[in-house]
Amino acid sequence: MINIGIVGYGNLGKSCEALVNDTSDMKLVGIFSRRDIKKDKFYKLDRILDFKDEIDVLILCGSSDKDITVQGPNLIENFNTVDSFDTHKKVYEYHHLMDKKAREAGRLALISTGWDPGLFSIIRTYGEAILEKGQTYTFWGKGISQGHSAAVRNIDGISDASQYTVPKDAVVEKVRNNEDIAFSPEMAHIRQVYAVKEEGYDQENLEKRIKTIPNYFDKYETHVNFISKEELEKNHKGMPHGGRVIRNGKSPSGNHSTMEFSLDLENNPDFTAAIDVAYARAVYKMNKEKISGALTVLDVPPKYLINKDYEALLKENI
Amino acid sequence: MINIGIVGYGNLGKSCEALVNDTSDMKLVGIFSRRDIKKDKFYKLDRILDFKDEIDVLILCGSSDKDITVQGPNLIENFNTVDSFDTHKKVYEYHHLMDKKAREAGRLALISTGWDPGLFSIIRTYGEAILEKGQTYTFWGKGISQGHSAAVRNIDGISDASQYTVPKDAVVEKVRNNEDIAFSPEMAHIRQVYAVKEEGYDQENLEKRIKTIPNYFDKYETHVNFISKEELEKNHKGMPHGGRVIRNGKSPSGNHSTMEFSLDLENNPDFTAAIDVAYARAVYKMNKEKISGALTVLDVPPKYLINKDYEALLKENI
Repeated sequence: MINIGIVGYGNLGKSCEALVNDTSDMKLVGIFSRRDIKKDKFYKLDRILDFKDEIDVLILCGSSDKDITVQGPNLIENFNTVDSFDTHKKVYEYHHLMDKKAREAGRLALISTGWDPGLFSIIRTYGEAILEKGQTYTFWGKGISQGHSAAVRNIDGISDASQYTVPKDAVVEKVRNNEDIAFSPEMAHIRQVYAVKEEGYDQENLEKRIKTIPNYFDKYETHVNFISKEELEKNHKGMPHGGRVIRNGKSPSGNHSTMEFSLDLENNPDFTAAIDVAYARAVYKMNKEKISGALTVLDVPPKYLINKDYEALLKENI
Repeated sequence: MINIGIVGYGNLGKSCEALVNDTSDMKLVGIFSRRDIKKDKFYKLDRILDFKDEIDVLILCGSSDKDITVQGPNLIENFNTVDSFDTHKKVYEYHHLMDKKAREAGRLALISTGWDPGLFSIIRTYGEAILEKGQTYTFWGKGISQGHSAAVRNIDGISDASQYTVPKDAVVEKVRNNEDIAFSPEMAHIRQVYAVKEEGYDQENLEKRIKTIPNYFDKYETHVNFISKEELEKNHKGMPHGGRVIRNGKSPSGNHSTMEFSLDLENNPDFTAAIDVAYARAVYKMNKEKISGALTVLDVPPKYLINKDYEALLKENI
């Protein structure tokens, strides 16, 4: 059995809790939170060192900006960790920070897993390695973007909002057909906003304010729908997401190849948890083999993720 | 520079030759064939030991049944190898054979790469590891199956033929929508035959004979089209192929996730060569790190496939 600890009890922590309890080769040792939750197996985070010898792998479920960059470097001295650090631009820096400490402690930190970064990073790498002369395209959605929803909610006069990122089907088709297009996230996605207006505010003015939020909306085709609080609650409070990576390449004799990987997820945290849990298994196995330091998904052979012996993999998965 | 040798000069060998010559970190040392080809860099296979110290990795491009199982065990004593051994049922046995010899010689054999087995094996493994409670579906095509085409050509009265394996769109849709279906390759694919009839044979009778070939056609929805030799040559002698792997799973709270990977290839040997070449790079790097034995794609971390240093991967691919 692989003994798992969970740090943080937001959406991702809750999905991890349910999945670890449902996974045959794992046991949930404890959930560690800054809050004082009075339930079995819940502990205040400052007590975590008491569990140093009982936990094989910690899954860090906090936010990238406030939690992981602080918790990761502290916890790696005594635990193996898996995290979904997702600030693409800071992965290099964060890796460097974790790698040194992890090596010194003989621990293993698997950083930046999830689906992007994570599975999409893997597919981008396979795509680029196999079709060296080619182009990679990443689409996100259809799914709710928490950051964009929050940006809309921050506007004075908006009481609540949800924002869907939606890839443009016509652009996906053009990419699949190897058409030569000037690709950018802005031209490839629509932003679909569902917002609840407070009384006494002008709808047209609010719509204009949403559409001109810099970076978030100003360069995108944005559609704003004002709806009732009830409709928002009923239809737009789920956490669906997804996306696709497409790699097009051309062989020396001019033949095209297209590799495409896509995800369609009813619940984003549930799927991210599933990836975290599989990589926790890999971390456990690799650390047993005396591998230490900070790794990414690009360092992990697929075989380590699965609860199956090598002979069965050769017979069933190849 | 990684020094590459190619064994076998059929379609795959030719695609590898062109690609290695077009790849910036590789150099083609020689092409080894049983035939005596009078061209620069071509050598008879029995001279290959002369190149033992010049070649880093050999790509074996012969057929699975007749060539690779004989050549692999002989060559691994003196060379690192990559092959596309694709008889799924014999991978375990072949791995065992190669592993022992490779370990003894300190060489590395990467067996059974390509797209199925190969990339599809990787996706099946990621899918099963991440969505443990779920189901995997593999579709092949639209593409030409050499084996099925040959089976049709073997019929007395057929002078030439091409057979396309075509996945049924309706079944793909059902799988994507998580419908509960009794899936089998037979119910998920159509076999589309284009055949050229010899004079004096009865068309209806030939069609019946094709449709009843055991295993190849008898359990499939098969469509037979008799066409002219000219039309077959013009429209059905390419080597397109492709396929898709879909993994559906359900989280403990009942949320569905779908992972889908698909390939759309204008030329099957060109794409298989691209995979072989990327894995030749991985074999070179891993053997430099003193890794020996027989490996499959499930043993290889994605980072080894690409011609890019680790720092750049962290910055650009994660």
